[in-house]
Amino acid sequence: MSTTGTPRGPVDSSRVPRYAGPATFARLPRLDEVGHTDVAVVGVPFDSGVSYRPGARFGGNAIREASRLLRPYNPAQDAAPFALAQVADAGDIAVNPFDIGEAVATVEAAAGDLLATGARLMTLGGDHTVALPLLRAVARRHGPVALLHFDAHLDTWDTYFGAAYTHGTPFRRAVEEGVLDTSALSHVGIRGPLYGRRDLDDDEKMGFGIVTAADVLRRGVDEVTDQLRQRIGDRPLYVSVDIDVLDPAHAPGTGTPEAGGLTSRELLEILRGLAGCRLVSADLVEVAPAYDHAEITSVAASHTAYELTTLMARQIAGGDASE
Amino acid sequence: MSTTGTPRGPVDSSRVPRYAGPATFARLPRLDEVGHTDVAVVGVPFDSGVSYRPGARFGGNAIREASRLLRPYNPAQDAAPFALAQVADAGDIAVNPFDIGEAVATVEAAAGDLLATGARLMTLGGDHTVALPLLRAVARRHGPVALLHFDAHLDTWDTYFGAAYTHGTPFRRAVEEGVLDTSALSHVGIRGPLYGRRDLDDDEKMGFGIVTAADVLRRGVDEVTDQLRQRIGDRPLYVSVDIDVLDPAHAPGTGTPEAGGLTSRELLEILRGLAGCRLVSADLVEVAPAYDHAEITSVAASHTAYELTTLMARQIAGGDASE
Amino acid sequence: MSTTGTPRGPVDSSRVPRYAGPATFARLPRLDEVGHTDVAVVGVPFDSGVSYRPGARFGGNAIREASRLLRPYNPAQDAAPFALAQVADAGDIAVNPFDIGEAVATVEAAAGDLLATGARLMTLGGDHTVALPLLRAVARRHGPVALLHFDAHLDTWDTYFGAAYTHGTPFRRAVEEGVLDTSALSHVGIRGPLYGRRDLDDDEKMGFGIVTAADVLRRGVDEVTDQLRQRIGDRPLYVSVDIDVLDPAHAPGTGTPEAGGLTSRELLEILRGLAGCRLVSADLVEVAPAYDHAEITSVAASHTAYELTTLMARQIAGGDASE
Amino acid sequence: MSTTGTPRGPVDSSRVPRYAGPATFARLPRLDEVGHTDVAVVGVPFDSGVSYRPGARFGGNAIREASRLLRPYNPAQDAAPFALAQVADAGDIAVNPFDIGEAVATVEAAAGDLLATGARLMTLGGDHTVALPLLRAVARRHGPVALLHFDAHLDTWDTYFGAAYTHGTPFRRAVEEGVLDTSALSHVGIRGPLYGRRDLDDDEKMGFGIVTAADVLRRGVDEVTDQLRQRIGDRPLYVSVDIDVLDPAHAPGTGTPEAGGLTSRELLEILRGLAGCRLVSADLVEVAPAYDHAEITSVAASHTAYELTTLMARQIAGGDASE
Amino acid sequence: MSTTGTPRGPVDSSRVPRYAGPATFARLPRLDEVGHTDVAVVGVPFDSGVSYRPGARFGGNAIREASRLLRPYNPAQDAAPFALAQVADAGDIAVNPFDIGEAVATVEAAAGDLLATGARLMTLGGDHTVALPLLRAVARRHGPVALLHFDAHLDTWDTYFGAAYTHGTPFRRAVEEGVLDTSALSHVGIRGPLYGRRDLDDDEKMGFGIVTAADVLRRGVDEVTDQLRQRIGDRPLYVSVDIDVLDPAHAPGTGTPEAGGLTSRELLEILRGLAGCRLVSADLVEVAPAYDHAEITSVAASHTAYELTTLMARQIAGGDASE
Amino acid sequence: MSTTGTPRGPVDSSRVPRYAGPATFARLPRLDEVGHTDVAVVGVPFDSGVSYRPGARFGGNAIREASRLLRPYNPAQDAAPFALAQVADAGDIAVNPFDIGEAVATVEAAAGDLLATGARLMTLGGDHTVALPLLRAVARRHGPVALLHFDAHLDTWDTYFGAAYTHGTPFRRAVEEGVLDTSALSHVGIRGPLYGRRDLDDDEKMGFGIVTAADVLRRGVDEVTDQLRQRIGDRPLYVSVDIDVLDPAHAPGTGTPEAGGLTSRELLEILRGLAGCRLVSADLVEVAPAYDHAEITSVAASHTAYELTTLMARQIAGGDASE
Repeated sequence: MSTTGTPRGPVDSSRVPRYAGPATFARLPRLDEVGHTDVAVVGVPFDSGVSYRPGARFGGNAIREASRLLRPYNPAQDAAPFALAQVADAGDIAVNPFDIGEAVATVEAAAGDLLATGARLMTLGGDHTVALPLLRAVARRHGPVALLHFDAHLDTWDTYFGAAYTHGTPFRRAVEEGVLDTSALSHVGIRGPLYGRRDLDDDEKMGFGIVTAADVLRRGVDEVTDQLRQRIGDRPLYVSVDIDVLDPAHAPGTGTPEAGGLTSRELLEILRGLAGCRLVSADLVEVAPAYDHAEITSVAASHTAYELTTLMARQIAGGDASE
Repeated sequence: MSTTGTPRGPVDSSRVPRYAGPATFARLPRLDEVGHTDVAVVGVPFDSGVSYRPGARFGGNAIREASRLLRPYNPAQDAAPFALAQVADAGDIAVNPFDIGEAVATVEAAAGDLLATGARLMTLGGDHTVALPLLRAVARRHGPVALLHFDAHLDTWDTYFGAAYTHGTPFRRAVEEGVLDTSALSHVGIRGPLYGRRDLDDDEKMGFGIVTAADVLRRGVDEVTDQLRQRIGDRPLYVSVDIDVLDPAHAPGTGTPEAGGLTSRELLEILRGLAGCRLVSADLVEVAPAYDHAEITSVAASHTAYELTTLMARQIAGGDASE
Repeated sequence: MSTTGTPRGPVDSSRVPRYAGPATFARLPRLDEVGHTDVAVVGVPFDSGVSYRPGARFGGNAIREASRLLRPYNPAQDAAPFALAQVADAGDIAVNPFDIGEAVATVEAAAGDLLATGARLMTLGGDHTVALPLLRAVARRHGPVALLHFDAHLDTWDTYFGAAYTHGTPFRRAVEEGVLDTSALSHVGIRGPLYGRRDLDDDEKMGFGIVTAADVLRRGVDEVTDQLRQRIGDRPLYVSVDIDVLDPAHAPGTGTPEAGGLTSRELLEILRGLAGCRLVSADLVEVAPAYDHAEITSVAASHTAYELTTLMARQIAGGDASE
Repeated sequence: MSTTGTPRGPVDSSRVPRYAGPATFARLPRLDEVGHTDVAVVGVPFDSGVSYRPGARFGGNAIREASRLLRPYNPAQDAAPFALAQVADAGDIAVNPFDIGEAVATVEAAAGDLLATGARLMTLGGDHTVALPLLRAVARRHGPVALLHFDAHLDTWDTYFGAAYTHGTPFRRAVEEGVLDTSALSHVGIRGPLYGRRDLDDDEKMGFGIVTAADVLRRGVDEVTDQLRQRIGDRPLYVSVDIDVLDPAHAPGTGTPEAGGLTSRELLEILRGLAGCRLVSADLVEVAPAYDHAEITSVAASHTAYELTTLMARQIAGGDASE
Repeated sequence: MSTTGTPRGPVDSSRVPRYAGPATFARLPRLDEVGHTDVAVVGVPFDSGVSYRPGARFGGNAIREASRLLRPYNPAQDAAPFALAQVADAGDIAVNPFDIGEAVATVEAAAGDLLATGARLMTLGGDHTVALPLLRAVARRHGPVALLHFDAHLDTWDTYFGAAYTHGTPFRRAVEEGVLDTSALSHVGIRGPLYGRRDLDDDEKMGFGIVTAADVLRRGVDEVTDQLRQRIGDRPLYVSVDIDVLDPAHAPGTGTPEAGGLTSRELLEILRGLAGCRLVSADLVEVAPAYDHAEITSVAASHTAYELTTLMARQIAGGDASE
Repeated sequence: MSTTGTPRGPVDSSRVPRYAGPATFARLPRLDEVGHTDVAVVGVPFDSGVSYRPGARFGGNAIREASRLLRPYNPAQDAAPFALAQVADAGDIAVNPFDIGEAVATVEAAAGDLLATGARLMTLGGDHTVALPLLRAVARRHGPVALLHFDAHLDTWDTYFGAAYTHGTPFRRAVEEGVLDTSALSHVGIRGPLYGRRDLDDDEKMGFGIVTAADVLRRGVDEVTDQLRQRIGDRPLYVSVDIDVLDPAHAPGTGTPEAGGLTSRELLEILRGLAGCRLVSADLVEVAPAYDHAEITSVAASHTAYELTTLMARQIAGGDASE
């Protein structure tokens, strides 16, 4: 149950049109307006870890803009998340664009501070580099967590240009650092060429299971979701969504697009199927608005964050022992 | 059978390139050129009823531009619609953008005039506000009609900012006014957050059944179509398509996009499956070209209108007693 | 001098990157953070008064986004406006999109409330309809004001479709209502076709002088500015800028573009030349982001608002008797 | 004086919104509605003669769409062109995209037919290849004509890939064929690299004078216009405008853009300065809408055609002996 | 097996960032760098055969740009194509844009020269006109080939405007000329209106079987692929992919878009299912970048070419008797 | 005079269409094809030093694509630059995106290597960070150089987030390091807000003179150019052009746009006016193609680089002692 009394919900759209007023996530209150929150939506405007198209530094605010269209009741999960728990917009974590190491440290510290208040995090990237400090902070609170990772790419490469902390390497680092529960690691949506077969071998050795984008087509969302749930069990779960898990048709606004991806409908249905899992925090990364059109990508991202937020709110309302 | 003798068809593309000449729907003759028509394609450039992105006032002409690519034989329905019945472009209904009430009245009157000539209407919006006056006019001719409504949204809300006639309310008004046959009301493609569970309860009380976008994924187009046909039976049918029933990937050019929608292939297949239904008129609304790219949305819309027009032409050619 | 003590300025960009955090105008504090302000930047998301392309409802927030790039010292006016006076973002005035009359009344009341606190207004539209209620509120405080109106269009037409309150009519209404000082009314940037010569005759009878866009090319910004200053004298001045005063190359994101317009450099230079004029409030309208590209329009608009804000801050710091 | 009685003007925008109804040029009647016209606005959707970006086949209809914004009174020329003479939209000349020779012949014949009715032509391209058959047809009626050619490029090259009829060669062909009065040939707006100095030498030998884009900046529009008028004198004049005479900022939607071009304000002012010249026909070519944004290019083009049309209407109303 | 020793692979992305350096296909060496190649990726920048939107002349280079994202190991086929065989970028075949007949002859000759070296071709169009000369050259080497044709359109029409060689006619010509094995001709992805039922009858008489886009939805990629493989058998196979086989959501950047198409995931999966077929050459055509956004289309195209290239490399490595 | 014999020029556009073949700058040979060059056009795909919109890593290749339109004779300078001296495309300097310090060192070394061959550099950025290592390398060869810096911004700030090497600081560093001749430092095109008046004071102390964008409007290009030439005298000169010196209308595709900038015509005319100056190398930076439209920005950039290249080629042909 929410620890904050009756949650303060979004601005009333019957009084203030959706396009009016500041763009907090889902038009929810700022964290400073509510003092404490059960779920903190927080941005990390950072993209210095990317290997191809930059621009995800503008991703969080683009998702917030698109989230003006979200309404307070989620029929797909039959839940009113912002009534079940306090969800608030905690603003952005200001990080240094010129020093990846410093940026990673800043994110870890700021995320730790938010988690220390008892909040769960719904982080809006930023590039995937930020998953590592987020996982460190989460693991410090919850111990090693199960990981459900939606992405076109494995993100378990070792280094680029000698750099250990980039958007292609967070989960290898996380495994090395022991912040992940290696008995429950899954990638979903993987596709596209790799550097070599060893990429797959290494990944498997770290403990990952792979559901490719083609698997989702062949087996359907329900069978895939069942398999994922079995792997997760009742472990504390972290979900990391790289928006490029979606096909470029559904997410043109991203940095390393790969054809043959998931539809937004598939992604949302799989997420909805995670109800009951002990989701302790989540991130959504790699939205690069300069490549978006008509908010196709950021609308999909805002719905993705909404489903994740609903899952967390339901856990909280259900009295999940995670917090 | 067509009441107009041998129909006059589109401009011959082997003599006049598709990109040349004026953009009537499918390059068909204007109504004033043929005098009488079985199916009137008519625009309603109006978007003063929208709650988020405006711009559908430019929708009808954008669909006409995209419809230059349509050819006269529809293999999916094995029919040459413009040979089976006279289809003509009746131009636009000029309505007042500054007074919604006056606009609604103008549309009702103009639609009534067209229907009074024996024509069926294929209306190109404009925003969804226009469905109400269209249904009023249709019901005056055919009595209460079955409704098949493709949309991301229910559009059965009550008021916005105290306004009863907006793009979110036409079907509640229509039910209240008795112009719909409440034993055969269906929404298809519904998804996305609502204001509350009461939205669903109210909708159900009005008589609507819902096929969500996720249902289409899980059950497939054929099973969904069968269910819809059973509900419709042999009642006179009105089909209203809000282009946002499609996923933003397939229809970015619209005013209130929701992730997780139908593909254009699914929508077209469901429509094709309605062959034999007594389709008396149809509308296609909410195409907002300022948000479109490369005519993705208006091409999908033009194909949608083409399938609906084919259905009507086949009914007419088959001697449907509706007219 | 500012009545609010040491003003609170923008977020420090050396600590928080410009792309991070919420998009208040120029990253200034919200009005609720400072309690009182000398200049209130306020949005009016409203575009139900437009006759062609809608979309200016999204204009204010687009300008705020683009204003992230503004820095605190204005070298062109040799002034640090946010240090000279408190400038704060007062958020948006929520208005009814479905009822123009109600919207006009809401704006008038809300603007009056802000002016009553002693603040000057830098209003971000929205469409030009909003100039009328703003002028009403300003005149209630300052008496009839001189008007300097930058626009491609006269906006002194009488009615459209019988509607008296639209984006093409505010200044005729304002003259009729006596809220303007008809001895000092100027249009700058006028160009493009009219309905008839009578448009010019009527306009002249109301007291307007016209500087066309071609005049600015031939005579240069300094001569034009001198003439405008002479006409204004020491009257309290209201400046209303329709962004379509700029050429479509400089402002594609607007509703009724006309070729042959001003460059942004010309507009900014003329504004800078108004230093010393008793600018009591200003508006900037008709930015329609759906038609913008790479923020060309909203960057120009943000600079325009910045120059106007600087003029007001300098007046305040100089102890202008207007307030 | 117009030979057609009281001209029929555009659709009344106070009854039918500008965005409604079919997109004839300036919302004028079709030629078939008025039977005879003094000025025929005619499209030539053809771009098979281009050497770089194609797409001008869509140019004429894009200009018509943008011309919805034109109003009936031209204050810059103090004339109501559509009242002074009948101006009508003659539709498109359908030409073969696969055979340049046949296309050229078709344009020549169709233009000749229109000219034979006593109409002057305001042709909307299409690429610049079409200027040759247009000049042939004009010369057959008026004898060799003075040419005022606005363009970034000379268009007096000899052949490309062995082809004599392309968008880079029409004026060399026209000189060779004797359809131009070589004592009065001017290029305006020339800039950008050439193949060699011989391009300039050849051009000069054909009789052309050049006003570069930089000349317009240095000397101003009035001095340039005076010089052009002197060269033209009272000869029958043909004006050919390649929209790439404008800078890419003002005309991105074209096929061979060159930086450093004219502003739309300069082009319009030079055209307005031609009042009194015996303009017998004109063309406007190379608008490629796929590269346009927010109609920047086609708005500029529609204003250009409007000034040219006004010049012709004034000539006609003044009883010019040319017709 | 590759005839060229150890193949030279792509630029190493760990030393040279993917966005750096020239855009050869997949960052592979140029043909002149390796002297001989097993698979030649060759562009044909030509679009003079199109009936609607031109622009495919820029297609090949756009695909090369997008192919920077391809990596050397293809997990979907468990193969490292550029290690199995030498694949090189053979540059573009320069063809005359003003003379279709000459262009067709040039392509046939140049393709023949490449094939004569023992290379297989992965041709990047260009419009579909180029398939005819490519098939001629291929048949001269391999005899009549089985054809697997992915497209929205049949491309077996007879003539347009009297022209026999256009993008809508290559396969009729190819059948007439005997360069296809008419016992194994398949279209996949067909949809959209036709000129008449005779289009289908003619197509069937030529020997084509059709898998519509709706068939792919209903039957799934595996069943479809099985059927196609049976039809192909062990015949030498040519695959021709018109990118408009994809839905406009997945391929907006093309010339004649049709709603209701395949997803990129379906196309890629079907292609992957062709492993073992004797693919002797392939083309990928109709990418028109002016209509693309964020490389959605050219990313899909680059992946398509990558799968085809992998199929050929595996054939070569497996010692296919075709070469 | 060129040291390389008869220079090898661009691909012949009468044989190979401009849109065909690889996109070297101006379709010139690669450096490896000619062995030695007088002017090396070299890319630096790097944007890790930016403070707002990233994306300039794609700038160099975008400029090369746009440079396909350049032809070999420059009429504005009456010179055929590629005949006067060998100009070749030296490809890209591959730099580490994750480590600014390493990147700066790599650029300095690679530039030094090229300069050591006697080549002058025409560098295509990349962000402005790269000017520092370029100037270091140039000064090592020529001693401290005069600087002519076209930009909206001073770029003489000290640090951002503690980082000394960013796109806002290169010229302060360069002054500190003694690689500039502080008696001849000029900024042109400066405009927009600063952090404080001290920015100007510091800049002046370093020795810079400023020509603002408004100065260019008021004084004209010729007077400005004269002043700049006097300041430069016969010193060895380095020209650094940040494309944001242009107005956003002329250069939307850049990272920190400021309204009120130069037109491309003004920039090109000033550059042309530098004929005779001892230009030893130049750079052109901050083209961010993700924000460009229809190559507006990269066409302007390609012309800018063409004028600079022409200046260098003329110097070389004239036997400038600099080399």
